[in-house]
Amino acid sequence: MSIKTELTTIAKKAQEAYRDATAISSDTKNKVLEEMAEAIVVKKDSILKANRKDIAHARARGLSRAFIDRLTLSDKRIKEMSGSLLEIAALVDPVGEVIKAWRRPNGLWIHKVRQPIGVIAIIYESRPNVTSDCVGLCFKSGNSVILRGGSESLQSNLSIFAILRDVLKKHSIPQGLVNMVATADRRAVNTLLKLEDYIDLVMPRGGESLIDYVVKNSRIPVIKHYKGICHVYVDEWADLNMADKVCFNAKVQRPGVCNAMESMLVHKDVAARFLPGMIKKFKEAKVEIRGCKMTQRIAKGIKLATEKDYHSEYLDLILSVKVVDDLHEAIRHINFYGSHHSDSIITENYAHALEFLRRIDSGCVYVNASTRFTDGNQFGMGAEIGISTDKLHARGPMALEELTTYKYMVFGDGQIRT
Amino acid sequence: MSIKTELTTIAKKAQEAYRDATAISSDTKNKVLEEMAEAIVVKKDSILKANRKDIAHARARGLSRAFIDRLTLSDKRIKEMSGSLLEIAALVDPVGEVIKAWRRPNGLWIHKVRQPIGVIAIIYESRPNVTSDCVGLCFKSGNSVILRGGSESLQSNLSIFAILRDVLKKHSIPQGLVNMVATADRRAVNTLLKLEDYIDLVMPRGGESLIDYVVKNSRIPVIKHYKGICHVYVDEWADLNMADKVCFNAKVQRPGVCNAMESMLVHKDVAARFLPGMIKKFKEAKVEIRGCKMTQRIAKGIKLATEKDYHSEYLDLILSVKVVDDLHEAIRHINFYGSHHSDSIITENYAHALEFLRRIDSGCVYVNASTRFTDGNQFGMGAEIGISTDKLHARGPMALEELTTYKYMVFGDGQIRT
Repeated sequence: MSIKTELTTIAKKAQEAYRDATAISSDTKNKVLEEMAEAIVVKKDSILKANRKDIAHARARGLSRAFIDRLTLSDKRIKEMSGSLLEIAALVDPVGEVIKAWRRPNGLWIHKVRQPIGVIAIIYESRPNVTSDCVGLCFKSGNSVILRGGSESLQSNLSIFAILRDVLKKHSIPQGLVNMVATADRRAVNTLLKLEDYIDLVMPRGGESLIDYVVKNSRIPVIKHYKGICHVYVDEWADLNMADKVCFNAKVQRPGVCNAMESMLVHKDVAARFLPGMIKKFKEAKVEIRGCKMTQRIAKGIKLATEKDYHSEYLDLILSVKVVDDLHEAIRHINFYGSHHSDSIITENYAHALEFLRRIDSGCVYVNASTRFTDGNQFGMGAEIGISTDKLHARGPMALEELTTYKYMVFGDGQIRT
Repeated sequence: MSIKTELTTIAKKAQEAYRDATAISSDTKNKVLEEMAEAIVVKKDSILKANRKDIAHARARGLSRAFIDRLTLSDKRIKEMSGSLLEIAALVDPVGEVIKAWRRPNGLWIHKVRQPIGVIAIIYESRPNVTSDCVGLCFKSGNSVILRGGSESLQSNLSIFAILRDVLKKHSIPQGLVNMVATADRRAVNTLLKLEDYIDLVMPRGGESLIDYVVKNSRIPVIKHYKGICHVYVDEWADLNMADKVCFNAKVQRPGVCNAMESMLVHKDVAARFLPGMIKKFKEAKVEIRGCKMTQRIAKGIKLATEKDYHSEYLDLILSVKVVDDLHEAIRHINFYGSHHSDSIITENYAHALEFLRRIDSGCVYVNASTRFTDGNQFGMGAEIGISTDKLHARGPMALEELTTYKYMVFGDGQIRT
């Protein structure tokens, strides 16, 4: 069977499955999720065994330590995967929610009702824990999922997938709800991206080159979880003590994630007071500073920031710093260099706060808080499938609700149009 | 200047313009729209003059009568264009609406606030009235628009565009909010579709080949306004008198539009009672019937429907008819052959009504009403920019609200993540 035939068969069955799944109650879904959570822990030895094969293979190929770290499962990680499934079971089922309903003068009664999107393809890198998270979130929101993980984690993914699918089987739930592309053949992705008759949404989760490839080649709508070049702007009206704490938190608390601060902007009138202490604190925390000329004048021994720095998502203990003339320069800089993910202003000035909130063109815009809060859990939405840097359909943290669309259900009693 | 340079310049300015436009009040927007409505009527002679050039050119090229009809403007059509702008002025401005707001345990106050999408490119065929409708809807919802109309209507479009843009100028509103690609060069579309750094959304409005081209070549998210293969299913529990009226309305009232019925399904137990009278009525209204074998047995002199018929959007006085065994066959048929636009069941059976509403995977699903109601105005949303057959972002009629996205505005007082 060719790859195209194989993937088309999977996608067709996935489409049938989510349509049939409209009959599954929330109670059943939750029970399935709880059993999946249990099965993963009970059968962890088989998962770890498969994972060891992947790791050995990755070592033999000389892949980086960070890569192997992301690939490696442990008792603890498996417990976390299981815990996520339980969390998802505990969330409210979004399907069927009446978003709005109204009656028209002719008596038509229109309901806008939340529905599964349909078939969602998720293309991700070699992080086996993503497998169970995605299955859990898509299953709870009534969608079929087609998983295509990094080929280096294939054995681990297959093992997790088989365990989860067995639970569906036990409950006589259409197997087509949960699918995995089990070939390491890289052409599979390109083939998937052309199945627009069966797949409703593609989400690439991974680095820039993966996302670019998907956007260029997909005929299916894509929601991107792109980079986070997040800023904190310290206004001339900032409480500098608060600015110090928030900037430190935004950069240092977890530098490797997309909502960490990558660039700090400081108003020229407070730069001389604020920067020396702040930079000292950063240096003590092993943060490398790359600053503009003004920053270099204020704090000695700092590398000059280039254009490239302002465009960079370091995901590391590196920070670019720029002194700006005013709020407007800060806003222009953020809208130009940022990635429209999360940006914060520190200010006690009411008008500046509102201006920043209104004009920053990002998914999450903060006043006096760390950018690190951009997260489904922190927002109170429960587990998240990612953080959209797109504007269409969903922006910012994406959880269960964002994995749904709607349809209009219209109740009539013989209305015709005149 | 190359086309690419020219279009990039337009798109960059459009991006700056919508960001600057956050400061324009709803009052100002409405005033501008009212003046646009007036200007179009006052300057109608120049529009009609430009339109005559387009028509002469189209005639010389031997284009079809229907094509020339869509291209032709008249006093009446210009009045309608003007009326649409006034209607849009009267609608509520969606920008800034707080969709939800909540407080987190740490005191963060999160607002989900409606925002313009940004830069919207609209690629449409030679219908000059679309020009002013799109300008009005995009301007009111705070978006910048880049219009690329059919080359055969270029003179008419340029004339309308110049009048509308003059109104912006008079009010010192950024000109970049409203843009037109003024070249007949067909490569312009392909170039536009690659400007994903500046354009947020593309909406193709036109036939299948235009939409296919855009989907295949765009790196920018696309919302499709695709075909409507709409069904009415006459259940065995239908009030046949109601079924007769609704089916006739859905097919005949305006056959050339996307929400007209293209296929009628009838339960086998009522077919012999329902079809003869219904088909007679259709024939009197000059509707050509193409039926399944059972239909042919019940009513004489009917052409056999092919697979292709069930996949067809006729947009004409033609109807495919199929007798089905039960509700489940009807649902399977509609989900398989339909275009997920609008489908209706006629029934007095409660369980069948709910089953149909739940399982039909279409943007608008009706019980006991004509599919012809799928329309922004009929739904009470005001003027529409189209009817989305996609599931992402917007489904069904798209009006002002559907031309927006949201961002999270988060109010803190020094919160950091621990």
